Amino acid sequence: MGIIMSEKEILVDVNKLKAFVQCVFEKLGVLEKDAQIVADNLLAADLRGIPSHGVARLERYVKGIRDGLIKPVTRLVTRLETLATATLDASDGLGQVAGKTGMELAIKKAEESGAGFVAVCHSNHYGIAAYYSMMALSHDLIGISMTNSAPLVVPTFGREIVVGTNPLSVAIPAGHKLPFVLDMATSTVPRGKVEVYDRMGKPMPHGWATDERGVSTTDATLVLKNLIERKGGGLLPLGGEGELLGGHKGYGLSLMIDILTGVLAGGAFGTHLYEKKDGKAQPANVCHLFGALRIEGFRPIGEFKNSLDKYITEIKNSPKAAGQSHIYIHGEKEFEMAERLTKTGVPLHPKTVGMLRFMAGEVGVKPKFE
Amino acid sequence: MGIIMSEKEILVDVNKLKAFVQCVFEKLGVLEKDAQIVADNLLAADLRGIPSHGVARLERYVKGIRDGLIKPVTRLVTRLETLATATLDASDGLGQVAGKTGMELAIKKAEESGAGFVAVCHSNHYGIAAYYSMMALSHDLIGISMTNSAPLVVPTFGREIVVGTNPLSVAIPAGHKLPFVLDMATSTVPRGKVEVYDRMGKPMPHGWATDERGVSTTDATLVLKNLIERKGGGLLPLGGEGELLGGHKGYGLSLMIDILTGVLAGGAFGTHLYEKKDGKAQPANVCHLFGALRIEGFRPIGEFKNSLDKYITEIKNSPKAAGQSHIYIHGEKEFEMAERLTKTGVPLHPKTVGMLRFMAGEVGVKPKFE
Repeated sequence: MGIIMSEKEILVDVNKLKAFVQCVFEKLGVLEKDAQIVADNLLAADLRGIPSHGVARLERYVKGIRDGLIKPVTRLVTRLETLATATLDASDGLGQVAGKTGMELAIKKAEESGAGFVAVCHSNHYGIAAYYSMMALSHDLIGISMTNSAPLVVPTFGREIVVGTNPLSVAIPAGHKLPFVLDMATSTVPRGKVEVYDRMGKPMPHGWATDERGVSTTDATLVLKNLIERKGGGLLPLGGEGELLGGHKGYGLSLMIDILTGVLAGGAFGTHLYEKKDGKAQPANVCHLFGALRIEGFRPIGEFKNSLDKYITEIKNSPKAAGQSHIYIHGEKEFEMAERLTKTGVPLHPKTVGMLRFMAGEVGVKPKFE
Repeated sequence: MGIIMSEKEILVDVNKLKAFVQCVFEKLGVLEKDAQIVADNLLAADLRGIPSHGVARLERYVKGIRDGLIKPVTRLVTRLETLATATLDASDGLGQVAGKTGMELAIKKAEESGAGFVAVCHSNHYGIAAYYSMMALSHDLIGISMTNSAPLVVPTFGREIVVGTNPLSVAIPAGHKLPFVLDMATSTVPRGKVEVYDRMGKPMPHGWATDERGVSTTDATLVLKNLIERKGGGLLPLGGEGELLGGHKGYGLSLMIDILTGVLAGGAFGTHLYEKKDGKAQPANVCHLFGALRIEGFRPIGEFKNSLDKYITEIKNSPKAAGQSHIYIHGEKEFEMAERLTKTGVPLHPKTVGMLRFMAGEVGVKPKFE
């Protein structure tokens, strides 16, 4: 949680950066309203302190569109629909556009019948999961968002990566307090954390990743090398190696999310995401599930919000562990970060700024964010 | 996962034991059909290798009913209902009866509109969470079951127990393969594991529990003593101490479940479960949430089951970590255990058998299970 700040980072104005990102996508043939969604989604990640899912990913989206693996115009086709459920086929379009549309449909269904669940297949990387779950908050709904992702995680007792870091986000509105917004990968850490330890040349804690034999290792460089060369090993599920600290639970959550997205939507699962055919890259076929529950289908909203405020207050006021001064509620750090960075601008690594400039040149727009 | 077998354990016939347990509940004023549900639920736990939630708990249920904290006749009152949602008030009745009724309603709603979610307040301990999620399997639905529970877990950076071990279960039907049945407490381990290390006089692994300062400890005896004396400390959430190994994720799941049960149903949450007033025990006010999703609301069931079978096969056939011979799918061990124990009888600790005999004498029935 939280970003690693460095003195070298450059603060960039949020609105200028958003307009620039939107402009890049429009130049690639993305419709204005869709480019707006993608830009807003990437900036939301930077603002919430998750730069790994922010504008630093722009290059990958541009490459995906240019290589024909991501379609710039996102056509959503309804495959199946009932009162409270639906499956949409995103036809290899943008994950953010598919995600926003899917969540809007889940919200509509929840407002009409109490619950709404929408699965999406043939999509792409959709950015931060909380972007969609949080759309439910202003409707006084509980929002749920999950996605499968590229295989990176070994199952308990396994040696090869067969599941993704498959994140789950659940957003729940409070009254006077900040909403509860859980947004968690189901691995102990994301790949980015291993990369940080590799750059620092520091040993990782045990429980993050395994070597090519499937045994927990502290060697970040080895893990990344093995992942690239497909030699075996990878990230460990939440709970770490084996069953002693509950690794089978993290693996279970990851597998559950892949079944509720890839298998339920009829898209790719496990090792079939980002699969190559005859050595050639194919569309990623990422799948998502969006859900919404109407709180007033269970309890009057005022009562619910009062109870949640009370609970949040009780937890935050409870005694702290030795050396600690705060107990956090999920989402709290990110809301505070976003409020601060909206004023100061988002901190970008010089490498990211360089990449954005290069992308500007590539697609033929001015890097007006500086 | 799995039970700790000992040479001293006594194998008891499943049907005789179930009939005995049912008889005890009937003697206490529980209706025949309700006593059947409770007996079936407790035996299901013993059969699946989770004796902590099996007949070993009989004494606590009997005491609860005798003390007037659990009502023998479970009256379920509908507080609110929409097409896909409902809240039931269990009026301090039996958790198993409330659970079965709640899940049946969720299933009915899912069959009609695609999704069904039913919250239950003023209930009691409902046994194993998977008992209810698995009810969805024969209907070709995805089943969800969760409950809050007595405070036992410290939040990340906290020193006192403010959330329960709040379990989550999700059951998903496969084709030729065994169903996927996740059933996990959101703490690293349940209290029972700490008790096992206390009895053995062995140090626990770090990441299971904290001392009274809120710092991870290996001293099981100290943790149990502190819990009884309310001196601080308790079980750690899945992911352990602090944020390094993802403890904030386990804490987030536990809090999420308490909000989706206690807060959503309008019952007790956090430290208010099993709360005393003026030193006097009050009804536990445990809350549950049951959910069901109709697979055919997303994708034809045959296609879904074929995909899930394929995925399960791929994971199980993937290379094993050094020294390992099996990769398990969630529920697999429990299904195999239940099949075996149905034939051999369930192994009971001599202390459990003694307690059952004592209970037989207390309520005035013959201990016919032997």
